[in-house]
Amino acid sequence: MALTDLSIATDAKILPIQEIAERAGIPGEALELYGNYKAKINVDLVPPAGSLGKVVLVTAISPTPAGEGKSTVTVGLADAFRQLNESVVVALREPSLGPVMGVKGGATGGGFAQVLPMEDINLHFTGDIHAITSANNALAAFIDNHLHQGNSLNIDPRRITWKRALDINDRALRQVTIGLGGPAQGVPRQDGFDITVASEIMAVLCLATSLEDLKERLARMVIGYTYQKEPITVRDLGVEGALTLLLKDAFKPNLVQTIEGTPAIIHGGPFANIAHGCNSLMATQTARKLADVVVTEAGFGADLGAEKFMHIKSRKGGFHPDAVVIVATVRALKMHGGVEKNSLAEVNHDAVRRGMVNLAKHVDTIRQFGIEPVVALNRFITDTEEELTEIFHWAETEGVKIALTNVWEQGGKGGLALAKLVKQELERPTDFAHLYDEADSVEEKLRTIVQKVYGGADVQLTDSAQKQLVELKKYGWDALPICMAKTQYSLSDQPKLLGRPEGFTITIREIIPKLGAGFLVCLTGDIMTMPGLPKQPAALKMDVGADGEAIGLF
Amino acid sequence: MALTDLSIATDAKILPIQEIAERAGIPGEALELYGNYKAKINVDLVPPAGSLGKVVLVTAISPTPAGEGKSTVTVGLADAFRQLNESVVVALREPSLGPVMGVKGGATGGGFAQVLPMEDINLHFTGDIHAITSANNALAAFIDNHLHQGNSLNIDPRRITWKRALDINDRALRQVTIGLGGPAQGVPRQDGFDITVASEIMAVLCLATSLEDLKERLARMVIGYTYQKEPITVRDLGVEGALTLLLKDAFKPNLVQTIEGTPAIIHGGPFANIAHGCNSLMATQTARKLADVVVTEAGFGADLGAEKFMHIKSRKGGFHPDAVVIVATVRALKMHGGVEKNSLAEVNHDAVRRGMVNLAKHVDTIRQFGIEPVVALNRFITDTEEELTEIFHWAETEGVKIALTNVWEQGGKGGLALAKLVKQELERPTDFAHLYDEADSVEEKLRTIVQKVYGGADVQLTDSAQKQLVELKKYGWDALPICMAKTQYSLSDQPKLLGRPEGFTITIREIIPKLGAGFLVCLTGDIMTMPGLPKQPAALKMDVGADGEAIGLF
Repeated sequence: MALTDLSIATDAKILPIQEIAERAGIPGEALELYGNYKAKINVDLVPPAGSLGKVVLVTAISPTPAGEGKSTVTVGLADAFRQLNESVVVALREPSLGPVMGVKGGATGGGFAQVLPMEDINLHFTGDIHAITSANNALAAFIDNHLHQGNSLNIDPRRITWKRALDINDRALRQVTIGLGGPAQGVPRQDGFDITVASEIMAVLCLATSLEDLKERLARMVIGYTYQKEPITVRDLGVEGALTLLLKDAFKPNLVQTIEGTPAIIHGGPFANIAHGCNSLMATQTARKLADVVVTEAGFGADLGAEKFMHIKSRKGGFHPDAVVIVATVRALKMHGGVEKNSLAEVNHDAVRRGMVNLAKHVDTIRQFGIEPVVALNRFITDTEEELTEIFHWAETEGVKIALTNVWEQGGKGGLALAKLVKQELERPTDFAHLYDEADSVEEKLRTIVQKVYGGADVQLTDSAQKQLVELKKYGWDALPICMAKTQYSLSDQPKLLGRPEGFTITIREIIPKLGAGFLVCLTGDIMTMPGLPKQPAALKMDVGADGEAIGLF
Repeated sequence: MALTDLSIATDAKILPIQEIAERAGIPGEALELYGNYKAKINVDLVPPAGSLGKVVLVTAISPTPAGEGKSTVTVGLADAFRQLNESVVVALREPSLGPVMGVKGGATGGGFAQVLPMEDINLHFTGDIHAITSANNALAAFIDNHLHQGNSLNIDPRRITWKRALDINDRALRQVTIGLGGPAQGVPRQDGFDITVASEIMAVLCLATSLEDLKERLARMVIGYTYQKEPITVRDLGVEGALTLLLKDAFKPNLVQTIEGTPAIIHGGPFANIAHGCNSLMATQTARKLADVVVTEAGFGADLGAEKFMHIKSRKGGFHPDAVVIVATVRALKMHGGVEKNSLAEVNHDAVRRGMVNLAKHVDTIRQFGIEPVVALNRFITDTEEELTEIFHWAETEGVKIALTNVWEQGGKGGLALAKLVKQELERPTDFAHLYDEADSVEEKLRTIVQKVYGGADVQLTDSAQKQLVELKKYGWDALPICMAKTQYSLSDQPKLLGRPEGFTITIREIIPKLGAGFLVCLTGDIMTMPGLPKQPAALKMDVGADGEAIGLF
């Protein structure tokens, strides 16, 4: 029988979570068990550390639709550090059920570099995302109830920006009308559902530093505007306490383990387009209290996830990555070299060579932050020796540090070469600097990201975005960092512009203030906040076996 | 400071759930811990019992809108049995978050007769209802995806009967249109949301006897009809395996404890109008394996919950209650005697006397099943001695067994008199008989319920219900038991017809086949399957304290 992620996970020896906690230095009284292999961590009961651990951020080149195995490399790298006897914890995002049931079938790394128990983590886990769904939709119900009960706040039903959410891929819910059926059934209005991981509450949970901070951020969230166009917040509705109550357990980070027994904290998972795409700040900071080295990841390529990690997440946390890994694959390089999606498995040296420009740009970007990146060339079974040699040759010429990883097949062992290079970088001081200040004007911040991170020429705002900017300034919301919503496939805002495009202009068509999360979402192109299901969803192969075991997750 | 349910719960001494499991005879390896005070029970690892425990069903007279404290009496009665050194387990329903955030603020008994940890049970508990929400909406997404991807099953979008669900009170979602926005956003159609506890999946989970049975029931659920009016089931869509996978942990009963340390199994909570309104069969049967006496409840009055318990739940389980408790209050008797809702606290002997007819009818109903009921007169602080004496006098005259309960204030001690009477009944053999056979015609089954249980004259079907009945017979679906959807306030289908109405006819306006649950829902009057929020939702008072403690649940 062929090995699958699920069969490897099922055959793996899994340790009681108490043993993992002990390995991580988490006292027993700080654990809240969820079965034998999952626990929530009561962070207040974790003793303070003398010094906080160093942070390795794993990012990637502009990815193919199938992804480059970034989570897999993140897990494998942590396992490799453990094989080198380093004290290490890996911090990851929680998978969203929507893509699991749709295309992915699972999102917990792969092969011998995955987290366990994968079937729980991929399904309901400890209920965090369900709690966010509840809080998101409770807020929506409070808003519509307010309209129905007399609308004393004078909310304009046409200007409600708060949407409902479900953790499911469901295109039919993108645009809906609600409140139909007459006066007893509420006030009719246009509405829509996002996937839960795109909810601002997910971003809030991932950036809050305490329960109080969580409540304060929830209170600040803008849910819409009055007929006079004045913003209405959750505080105006008076339900920030109830929302915090719904989220108080979800706010605690979750402890699990990698297949090799490395402690893993999996917590939060905001969308990497509409939000910042990293696990919770709480998880990363807890991991830093526990271990000398924390390996974590950010969504999509370095132009999106890493940029946001630097400018949003780690800035809020008062730290910066000490080392950055850029995951690249022969497949993705070929794609950037012009090969069609369906032909990526075919040998094509020229395309690999041409595609290297995309990797080179991401290397440059990380260097601009004052960090020397390490490239992880994540091996696939279809790669040829010649292709790999070609890439190593390029790296040598350009002075880029690079290691081959083969963690899917070999676990930590397949990440040892990478870990050794990263360790060297961790031992060198960085010269870290943000590319922009929060106090810069919105236009300046945007221009900096476009020019320095995307390699573009300039940025332009549509008329409506210009108008929104005027409003933002009026309310003093312009001093927040930018959260770009852009296609992950291209450095530009055109998904088909692969490689390293130049001279392009990015168009911002909408600016959405997310005061709870504390950033301004700047939309470019069409950004999907509710995915659809494919013709044959992954769910069709899912089942439960005779002994209650999961079937069809992969 | 005044005592509240939450303050009493917070001050209570709570035992580690392992101790409760030991008390109940559940082996350690059968426990899956959810924190220190909640656990799921792996039923396969609970050893078989020599004989199964006896079942005490707690039901009520036709209730007031505030309820008569049925859950509180159920908990207090179990605690009283334990004080009498009986081996006892209480089996209850899971609270729905919608009403908790809306009006109720909590649904775990009250005062010194409640289950712990009340703040967890009232919020997300072990995630069962969230798993049902996920499965319900995943199925909806699969249906709409099927329409979008070519509709090879030829489903008529106007005849899809499967609705979406959220565990929230949200009237604005009762009637919606979805799939708007053009060809990329699905197929436009009318839809609606029910509260999750009204989902057929909740009823299925509560009646399934094994994971296989669960899957088979899910496969049988009808989701709509083709353009040729042929039924389409979950099996036709091929997603019963995925839905079972989403529900496999939710299917395991949850162990908690009462404030006095009596083992409590809380699992499942279908709506008592559109469904059968009892905790899961799995929970009750597991409790019967563990204890000599199982105390459990059914929703609303004996005309609804108890009738459905007899004809649906316990029939599926192959057992029947060994004793029945009917909870009555002075307040409810007064209401049935003609007193307005806002004057129920005022002394009114005549009204109490007049209202006794409602209680008398429910006593008669239980006697028809061959069981001699015990009335629990649940004391409220506003009751006078004279009122109570009046009721006891009536009971003596009519030969009705009755005991005063004061469990809110006194816990199990306040239920000792009741427990002693119930114990006598448990020691006598019953002469149980169902009032109808499943093989009877639908009209006969309906007439039996209306005449014997409601005390009405007859039943009539609207033209459209008549048509539905013809269809049901065509598909051979008419041999299922009936699940009446009727107002809980009256024995009739007119909410304002209090006391003991006679000569009335019940109108069935719709018959909905629930093939997964295995019953025919017969709708009378307007039945609400998605509640609304009040002007001042309970949520406005909810908060989290400085130490992370819940505030505002009651």
